[in-house]
Amino acid sequence: MSLAIISPNRDIAPWLKILADTASEIPLEIYPDIKDPDNVEVAMVWQHPKGSLQAFPNLKLICSMGAGVDHILGDETIPKDIPITRIVDPRLTFSMTNYVVMGVLNYHRQIDRYKKDKAKKVWDMSNPEIPIRVGVLGVGELGGDVLDKLAQLGIEVYGYGNSNKSDFRHPYYFGEQLPLFLQKVNVIVCLLPLTPETEGFLNMDLFKLCKKDTYLINVARGKHLNEGDLIEAIDEGYMSGALLDVFRQEPLSKEHTFWEHPKITITPHIASITNPDAAAPQIIKNYFNVIEGKGLINQIDRNKGY
Amino acid sequence: MSLAIISPNRDIAPWLKILADTASEIPLEIYPDIKDPDNVEVAMVWQHPKGSLQAFPNLKLICSMGAGVDHILGDETIPKDIPITRIVDPRLTFSMTNYVVMGVLNYHRQIDRYKKDKAKKVWDMSNPEIPIRVGVLGVGELGGDVLDKLAQLGIEVYGYGNSNKSDFRHPYYFGEQLPLFLQKVNVIVCLLPLTPETEGFLNMDLFKLCKKDTYLINVARGKHLNEGDLIEAIDEGYMSGALLDVFRQEPLSKEHTFWEHPKITITPHIASITNPDAAAPQIIKNYFNVIEGKGLINQIDRNKGY
Repeated sequence: MSLAIISPNRDIAPWLKILADTASEIPLEIYPDIKDPDNVEVAMVWQHPKGSLQAFPNLKLICSMGAGVDHILGDETIPKDIPITRIVDPRLTFSMTNYVVMGVLNYHRQIDRYKKDKAKKVWDMSNPEIPIRVGVLGVGELGGDVLDKLAQLGIEVYGYGNSNKSDFRHPYYFGEQLPLFLQKVNVIVCLLPLTPETEGFLNMDLFKLCKKDTYLINVARGKHLNEGDLIEAIDEGYMSGALLDVFRQEPLSKEHTFWEHPKITITPHIASITNPDAAAPQIIKNYFNVIEGKGLINQIDRNKGY
Repeated sequence: MSLAIISPNRDIAPWLKILADTASEIPLEIYPDIKDPDNVEVAMVWQHPKGSLQAFPNLKLICSMGAGVDHILGDETIPKDIPITRIVDPRLTFSMTNYVVMGVLNYHRQIDRYKKDKAKKVWDMSNPEIPIRVGVLGVGELGGDVLDKLAQLGIEVYGYGNSNKSDFRHPYYFGEQLPLFLQKVNVIVCLLPLTPETEGFLNMDLFKLCKKDTYLINVARGKHLNEGDLIEAIDEGYMSGALLDVFRQEPLSKEHTFWEHPKITITPHIASITNPDAAAPQIIKNYFNVIEGKGLINQIDRNKGY
């Protein structure tokens, strides 16, 4: 029995160090240089090449190396009966929430305006705050924490999800109430899970339902957003701008319009980065759970998609 | 009996509107066009010209039009027995805290780095967070709220003040413990009251006691900072940069080094602006308290300086 690591786009050195330091008894196979595929029973993966898991006929568990599993669920060559786990790390919530709070406050307090004023040596004290009400799409662990922290800062918040949650702790809309929700807010934060239903959720139809000058923060997945629609919505005056951390193609192509758009701030998918120190022990734990026939930690529900 | 308004550097139109709408029976005198100085018993002031209150022999109350009173206490021509009041407005705390949180998170998440990367079309995911521990100088109403809100966001915080507060709700240092406090943190936020003891508090001696690459946020008063020392401390590598909302001379002179310094972000004294809707009723209330011989609201203690 061995553990395969398939993470071609990320530096796996920190993961290897923790495995060597704390679980050197686990035999490792590192993609693409797999020596004994029949022996692989657990795979830890991040953005694996589609179909690459087919090489392992005795695979019993797939561990995402991050909080998201859409990269696994999107590979239809994976048998539906293999369990999938993800990483749960309070530090991921800390980073995500503080990134979003930063984005919300930068819009509220117009940091870009003051940067421009500084460059022109302009001292303009007028209208120092854009009044904001923030709506969060997706009220799971991350979205819920963002709502809590913004509310603690005295900011008016609203949540939106796909199911009725009559006892949710913040004002909440769901399903077909989307237009009502969008009329309540002027900043929207996307923290939806990526599923077939939410792909392309941020599109021109939605932007046209927003209040004029609504600001978008997308920290979920690039595929939630129809990128061309956003450019059009900003350029035609529906939306006032955006802070984007995720993109359909990453790294973002040098030719992409986002790089030079003055109303779009971009960061390179760093809002919340998995910390191997917190994540690797969870995968090691599940590797031994498989050996010992025990239940898994942080297993996802394939039907829900998260 | 009349109320004099002395606020030569600010637009007083919103104040006049509220006075006209809610207390039109109060006779007004507007500086510099004072018609009957003997009749003035209450003055509401913001950055009045030093000595200008000497024109009123029957003055019984001076109301600051903002939260600060240093502009009044700094005028030694004012008799010590005239009571002084200030504005207390929860919205001032909301604005101040959220401005500081924005500044702290922008440093933590390196927004300036990502803005530069965007301009150069660079996709660099390495080291996305600067680890931070935040120290707040001054733990009054504003400083205390900043500490509370940063702690709620999961950020390690420390307070510093001039007196022993053994039961303070956050780790706290005072007086001669300044070097210990500064070695605990790498972001310092100045929210001290401006008094003769705190003028020039942010100087080269203090910067040399800081950990290397400490970041400064000054939202208190320009006179807390020796501006030349800050430039030198940044350029010599003691400090990593600063966010400044207040300056020794406001508006900041076009010749000032701050405008072009790449590691200094400036805003034009807008972190927390008095809202006349909240403030004017407090002054009106105190005007009538004087007439009726009642106690004042929001009176300051001259000996403490705030």
